[in-house]
Amino acid sequence: MEELGYVPNQAARSLVTRRHDAVAVVVAEPETRVFADPFFALQLRGISKELTAHDNQLVLLLTEGRDDHARVGRYLAGGHVDGALVFSLHLDDPLPELIQRAGVPTVFGGRPGWNGDRRDVVYVDSDNRGGARDAVRHLAGLGRTRIAHITGALDQTSAVDRLDGYRDVMVDADPRLIAEADFTPAGGERAMRELLDRCPDVDAVFAANDLTASGALRVLRETGRRVPDDVAVIGFDDMLPIAEQADPPLTTVRQDIEEMGRLMARLLLRGLDRGTPHEGAQGVGGTPSSVVLPTTLVRRASA
Amino acid sequence: MEELGYVPNQAARSLVTRRHDAVAVVVAEPETRVFADPFFALQLRGISKELTAHDNQLVLLLTEGRDDHARVGRYLAGGHVDGALVFSLHLDDPLPELIQRAGVPTVFGGRPGWNGDRRDVVYVDSDNRGGARDAVRHLAGLGRTRIAHITGALDQTSAVDRLDGYRDVMVDADPRLIAEADFTPAGGERAMRELLDRCPDVDAVFAANDLTASGALRVLRETGRRVPDDVAVIGFDDMLPIAEQADPPLTTVRQDIEEMGRLMARLLLRGLDRGTPHEGAQGVGGTPSSVVLPTTLVRRASA
Repeated sequence: MEELGYVPNQAARSLVTRRHDAVAVVVAEPETRVFADPFFALQLRGISKELTAHDNQLVLLLTEGRDDHARVGRYLAGGHVDGALVFSLHLDDPLPELIQRAGVPTVFGGRPGWNGDRRDVVYVDSDNRGGARDAVRHLAGLGRTRIAHITGALDQTSAVDRLDGYRDVMVDADPRLIAEADFTPAGGERAMRELLDRCPDVDAVFAANDLTASGALRVLRETGRRVPDDVAVIGFDDMLPIAEQADPPLTTVRQDIEEMGRLMARLLLRGLDRGTPHEGAQGVGGTPSSVVLPTTLVRRASA
Repeated sequence: MEELGYVPNQAARSLVTRRHDAVAVVVAEPETRVFADPFFALQLRGISKELTAHDNQLVLLLTEGRDDHARVGRYLAGGHVDGALVFSLHLDDPLPELIQRAGVPTVFGGRPGWNGDRRDVVYVDSDNRGGARDAVRHLAGLGRTRIAHITGALDQTSAVDRLDGYRDVMVDADPRLIAEADFTPAGGERAMRELLDRCPDVDAVFAANDLTASGALRVLRETGRRVPDDVAVIGFDDMLPIAEQADPPLTTVRQDIEEMGRLMARLLLRGLDRGTPHEGAQGVGGTPSSVVLPTTLVRRASA
């Protein structure tokens, strides 16, 4: 009751603000990827629990890819939802611009990649750079000297931040020890083959996520390398059961993906409660600020 | 041009009917199940391709379960979409009633379970009963006499139809040869244990889907039964890679799940083009009728 503009209950609030009690979720990936990568299912689980607890409808806008994002923008601008949760943005995606024009209150999953004065943007992220540093320091602590990095999709800030964390520790890293991939198992396989080709003496790999690490492990096994004896491997995510059932079980940097989803939804709903539906482009209600969650190194057998 | 009411292009049509160019998809299952069972990803893939080809936005309404369906009904009634595609309905689900009241043109995936005079209901289904008959006849043709059936969730018509197909062939089946499950691997495991307990002489199993069959195979392996020598097993779906990578590779009844999704979307869009948005409760445009797709037996190693 202390707060100005406090509205005592949801029904009254609904009368005032004409809420739909519906929140759009946009995963800026083709729907095939949304269903293939368990990361998204976990994030959606957190979002779904939180929205349901507040009797808000989760409206997932699926697409075949970036060409469809203009249509997503039109739907968001059409007044069908109170706000939006957007994750897995890639650089040059028109979505943030479209969302801003639509004036829809939005919370992003992962720091958006654009530059400029956008302190009003609210996002939930993990400490990707710090987590990456922990992983590479752990490998160095094991006495490894030829530590490689298999990157994620470098048009996403999470991949760039993890690469930066690797470089923070490996200040003079041999550039041939960095192989680019895209957060998928197939990308991890390709990159691991490249690395073994270029640097047969590689003795450790920090992979940008667990799916990539699982691809790298497969190639190491096929080429007769023992993990961790010959090559130590660390992933990122602590995606279960993938990390636990890897051969050998994967040492990895844990981020709480479901909690990230829950937090995104909570920040958005809190902003909607405090603000008005149309100040969205200026962030949600002006009050909530971005959150960066800590990560933890989970030690299993691979490093 | 021959058809009355023909509208030459989408822009003009949009002016006439105030279309949102958005279609809701409701899977009447908790979101955890939507992401855990590849059946839904496949059906959504077909729907997404077809809607995208017609520049319609796929609006997936996720829930934590049936308690949330009243909220889904409110969203559908709120005029945010032109029509709805609804699948995996269970008996006594309030959704069909809510949808009818909302007056939203709808195509169902799978024959809805309610009774009465609803010839106006449009659905896309597979020939579940015929496919089940083919499976059980194949097992009988192999000389098996103690043929069991592990059912799907019997509050769904697909499960009831497959049980009916089993009974069509096994006219005087020992009732102890029928074990109830729920289309999940865990359900298949439980049911297979029950069957072995009750009828240790069982020599064949027709499982209601491939996931259930995979659970049954696990239990047969654990209890030292050879497949197909001791017990032949047939599934339903031909879900890849599950059926191919089963141990042994699974003989199964194929239904084209992605095509079912595509057809649902096509029927709905065709109905919307011909009809008006508000005759929905009377079916879409009155023109399209339900479609039942044929199934095929795919022989691999398990039977």
